[in-house]
Amino acid sequence: MPLTTVDINAMEKRYRAQFINSLSGYKSANLIGTIDAQGQTNLAIMSSAFHLGATPPLMGLIVRPDVAERHTLDNIRDLGVYTINHVNQDIYAQAHQTSARYPKTTSEFEAVGLTPEYIADFPAPAVQESAIKMGLELREEQLMKINGTHLVIGEIVWVDVPTEVIAEDGYVQINETNTVALSGLDAYFSAEPLQRLPYAKQ
Amino acid sequence: MPLTTVDINAMEKRYRAQFINSLSGYKSANLIGTIDAQGQTNLAIMSSAFHLGATPPLMGLIVRPDVAERHTLDNIRDLGVYTINHVNQDIYAQAHQTSARYPKTTSEFEAVGLTPEYIADFPAPAVQESAIKMGLELREEQLMKINGTHLVIGEIVWVDVPTEVIAEDGYVQINETNTVALSGLDAYFSAEPLQRLPYAKQ
Repeated sequence: MPLTTVDINAMEKRYRAQFINSLSGYKSANLIGTIDAQGQTNLAIMSSAFHLGATPPLMGLIVRPDVAERHTLDNIRDLGVYTINHVNQDIYAQAHQTSARYPKTTSEFEAVGLTPEYIADFPAPAVQESAIKMGLELREEQLMKINGTHLVIGEIVWVDVPTEVIAEDGYVQINETNTVALSGLDAYFSAEPLQRLPYAKQ
Repeated sequence: MPLTTVDINAMEKRYRAQFINSLSGYKSANLIGTIDAQGQTNLAIMSSAFHLGATPPLMGLIVRPDVAERHTLDNIRDLGVYTINHVNQDIYAQAHQTSARYPKTTSEFEAVGLTPEYIADFPAPAVQESAIKMGLELREEQLMKINGTHLVIGEIVWVDVPTEVIAEDGYVQINETNTVALSGLDAYFSAEPLQRLPYAKQ
């Protein structure tokens, strides 16, 4: 017997958040690096970055309007730039800790012990401890009226990735840099390769 | 030295698709089940399903306007319903094969050897071989003007998940049903648990 809307609505709030958050499948784990006009840096873990297109190279990000993610959204709006940094096995606990509700005057870089890195004169800080990182410029923002979340669309303007993990066909072997996957709100996973499959033909 | 916009633009088209698709991190692997008014079923693998909110329980889906995904989009628009089914280790090769460009009159269920399952009088078919599956009703559709992709937002109206994989706090242990993760266009992974971390406090 499947659970239905009535069952889902009857779930206690935190139980429902855990349950529903698990249903989409594995999620990306990224640290979003930003800075404000006063030079105050901010770092926030997000599991909502998604591929939107390759030409131009676009990434989407769902940002909830709550305190922790609000600082990131404000900075992206104000300066129009941000970095996306893969969370790996060495830093996932520190990355998770950025989700605590630090005041705007606290840099999560300092609070959790990660190092801001400035790449190619890009204004927003990247994460030195992250092996795969990129800089994005804000291109579009949409309010999801249905639940008040924000969709932030950015264009990738630089990518820093170890050359040796790029396969011959352009695929980046993200397991070789120990990038982790997230499930639900707080479950971290490493990934074991099963197979790459050829382009499917009828 | 990071790769910049100039380097990305200079990449051969398929190389760039592989490269950029890898950058968001691990992605979900889901089969989207639909049906048209004539009863013709359709099944398409997508790596773009993402959690949008728990109250109400919403899932987003980025659909490209090309042939394979177009059939799915047409069906979702026409009947307003679809299923999302986790891809697991036993069926990932069949799931991948649904991305071939079958004509509209071919059901990918039959073509790849997966079994349509009708749950709780819901009109759209689920995938019997999938352990975690859910039914959604279309709530909103947005055109991403920046690149012509479509954002489809649906509300989860039923969920079928083995009771024994639901943790006490509501988290669904999707590794216990062997749900796979995707990276790039075609790289499939199993997931090994690292750790669940507590809610982060300052």
